[in-house]
Amino acid sequence: MDKRLVGKRVLVTQSKDYMGPATVELFREHGAYVLADESDLRESSAASAVVDKVGDIDILVANLAAPANLGTMAHDIDEDVWFTMFDVMVHPLHRLFRAVLPQMYKRREGKIVVYGSATGIKGLEGVAAYSSARAAQIGYIRSVGREAARYNVQINLIAQNFVENEDYFSTEFQETSYFKEIMEKDVPIGRLATAREDALFALFLASNESDFFVGQAIAFSGGWAQ
Amino acid sequence: MDKRLVGKRVLVTQSKDYMGPATVELFREHGAYVLADESDLRESSAASAVVDKVGDIDILVANLAAPANLGTMAHDIDEDVWFTMFDVMVHPLHRLFRAVLPQMYKRREGKIVVYGSATGIKGLEGVAAYSSARAAQIGYIRSVGREAARYNVQINLIAQNFVENEDYFSTEFQETSYFKEIMEKDVPIGRLATAREDALFALFLASNESDFFVGQAIAFSGGWAQ
Amino acid sequence: MDKRLVGKRVLVTQSKDYMGPATVELFREHGAYVLADESDLRESSAASAVVDKVGDIDILVANLAAPANLGTMAHDIDEDVWFTMFDVMVHPLHRLFRAVLPQMYKRREGKIVVYGSATGIKGLEGVAAYSSARAAQIGYIRSVGREAARYNVQINLIAQNFVENEDYFSTEFQETSYFKEIMEKDVPIGRLATAREDALFALFLASNESDFFVGQAIAFSGGWAQ
Amino acid sequence: MDKRLVGKRVLVTQSKDYMGPATVELFREHGAYVLADESDLRESSAASAVVDKVGDIDILVANLAAPANLGTMAHDIDEDVWFTMFDVMVHPLHRLFRAVLPQMYKRREGKIVVYGSATGIKGLEGVAAYSSARAAQIGYIRSVGREAARYNVQINLIAQNFVENEDYFSTEFQETSYFKEIMEKDVPIGRLATAREDALFALFLASNESDFFVGQAIAFSGGWAQ
Repeated sequence: MDKRLVGKRVLVTQSKDYMGPATVELFREHGAYVLADESDLRESSAASAVVDKVGDIDILVANLAAPANLGTMAHDIDEDVWFTMFDVMVHPLHRLFRAVLPQMYKRREGKIVVYGSATGIKGLEGVAAYSSARAAQIGYIRSVGREAARYNVQINLIAQNFVENEDYFSTEFQETSYFKEIMEKDVPIGRLATAREDALFALFLASNESDFFVGQAIAFSGGWAQ
Repeated sequence: MDKRLVGKRVLVTQSKDYMGPATVELFREHGAYVLADESDLRESSAASAVVDKVGDIDILVANLAAPANLGTMAHDIDEDVWFTMFDVMVHPLHRLFRAVLPQMYKRREGKIVVYGSATGIKGLEGVAAYSSARAAQIGYIRSVGREAARYNVQINLIAQNFVENEDYFSTEFQETSYFKEIMEKDVPIGRLATAREDALFALFLASNESDFFVGQAIAFSGGWAQ
Repeated sequence: MDKRLVGKRVLVTQSKDYMGPATVELFREHGAYVLADESDLRESSAASAVVDKVGDIDILVANLAAPANLGTMAHDIDEDVWFTMFDVMVHPLHRLFRAVLPQMYKRREGKIVVYGSATGIKGLEGVAAYSSARAAQIGYIRSVGREAARYNVQINLIAQNFVENEDYFSTEFQETSYFKEIMEKDVPIGRLATAREDALFALFLASNESDFFVGQAIAFSGGWAQ
Repeated sequence: MDKRLVGKRVLVTQSKDYMGPATVELFREHGAYVLADESDLRESSAASAVVDKVGDIDILVANLAAPANLGTMAHDIDEDVWFTMFDVMVHPLHRLFRAVLPQMYKRREGKIVVYGSATGIKGLEGVAAYSSARAAQIGYIRSVGREAARYNVQINLIAQNFVENEDYFSTEFQETSYFKEIMEKDVPIGRLATAREDALFALFLASNESDFFVGQAIAFSGGWAQ
């Protein structure tokens, strides 16, 4: 097996959540030195503290996830749920970028991969707050991605949906007829992705095989969003 | 002249800023009863207070604007600038929606027009925080717009750029060679839109001539974004 | 009633088909002098012959429609169906543009509105040939639209779906449970647009109220595509 | 080195043109058995003849290229240039798909990678015919890609621009100040991609590391299109 991240220091945030475990595992298989961070990043100084602690990194995997609160109509989304979305997924993203970009710009090399959501590029009922925060991530990386390209730092985002994870697609939910109908009608590929498949895409975006990608939010959703 | 908003009660927020004045003027010419609100909506109870005060409205024009802080690299955007974007343009949007949607859903009729930004759909360097907040608006209305359609309430967003306004395009800035080069190279139409032209698009989206538009962010940028 | 096209000479192609009748009617109500052409435009000289005959026009409504052949898998689409799509919807579009743009550029004024399809911006199974031809229209107007903007000629396209017309949504089809399920699941607004609603959007794009729109393909589909 | 295409039979069309040589070389390094075809595919029976000759294939790389004819205004594009675009890039695509999809559907496995263009997703002046044909490819694969997903066949397209190749970016052109200005202003990454970088993306889309991608046109343009 070839190892595509040999000698790379990689920071993975929320490493126990969402796409964290699969990413840590796959990236280690590929020779990366993975710094798996489990901090809660909502605290304003948390992001910079993590980066200070780990020092120089070649690759940041911004894995930020909050519950999607599926099925709540927008006008019923209360302040608490609303702010959690931004506090967990949006503000820490900027703080992480603030902390890692200067060192990457200085070395003129670096990669950032963001695990985001296809709900940030395609409308879906019942997830207004979540979609809004995920779209904020995309608007952000499209802009910063262009700035970073000039320093040979590539920033891209996986706009995913229908990837196996207990938070959004519990085993229980997968057994409902509602879920089966979604798979049949809305997801051309007719199945969930495994977390490992998703991590393989992150690997591509983190490796030097994707140096020409700049500030892109790329759908990973089995055809739900194209 | 035909009047396309006769009998309509319209709430325009931040009525002295951004697209407020042009909107108030044009909508009044079209027979609307315009409630021009000048409140600062950053306070968490401000949005609902405004809606409580004005009572039932047929049309909400969500005109929310903060300085774009053009030209700051993302890693130099401090917490203060960052949060201002969301405090002014994103959180009040949700609060306004929370306040007006129930009455619109009950009557099964209503329109919301959001003055947003094309930087929410197309990457631009030097405006990462602004772009992120504007993208958050778009992710939000794409989701809520779908929910609202089922209640005969239409929500759409003007993804604008290059519209005359003193905040973003001062007379001084318009005289720089930098501005002229942008017009020549990046804006096919080669000029700024007038605020009135923009308000005419808002009028279309607010009138019953656009009942089939659902949760759309439509570019209004002279060809910069298409 | 205000008339928004007074003094305008408008050419509407395939005037008896698709959106032709509703457009001719509405545009005439708005004071336009409408040249309703019924020619088959597949013949290579047909487009220029029509424009030669009518002389100067202010507005071209490119209404080009072929059967969608809904439900045929791509590998079963034969040469005949395939070429019909391009012969009816794509090649005549270019020929019409070749015929009208020089006069519009000379006068530095003009509008072109293309009735296109949302299948050109969003994937849909069973309509590969049709989608391909409709996407070709969109790729075309995005490019030409930018060129034309410099001459004060605005070219835009209505990326529609779910608009009443006997060809694509026969009364019979509308009564099937399949159709009703589509309306319920895939079309947030839950109904077809009337042809008149669609023509109202064309009116907006043909009038001087939309001078800042450049080469855009705008969804008109009740939320199916956003 | 790991080999990601061991045991795969790959057909690469126009193997001496555009991205052909780099693809053939890289895919062979990865263990593929590459059938490098040089046929002119404009003839209506050419595509099926090629597929008949090579028999079963696991992967089709649809590499179809015609001169972009950069810099011609739309109304000056003659019939000959116009039809060449569709005859070279669009009609053969459908014929190739017709020829290979049945065998892939039967085996319930297969990959198709199309080398397309970012001008099919983003407007650019002076390339209307080329853009139209490239957009036609995209509209096509978005539709067929969804159909094919149900048979475990993945079809995706590289929407590229600014990739080294003598046809579009000759050494001579690269030395002009016009080219240098484009790199500086319009391409955030500030350089052309090598053909090998592009082939690496094709490798990703051709390998089993991208099984969850369905009918997508993904920008590969150094940030020009995002």
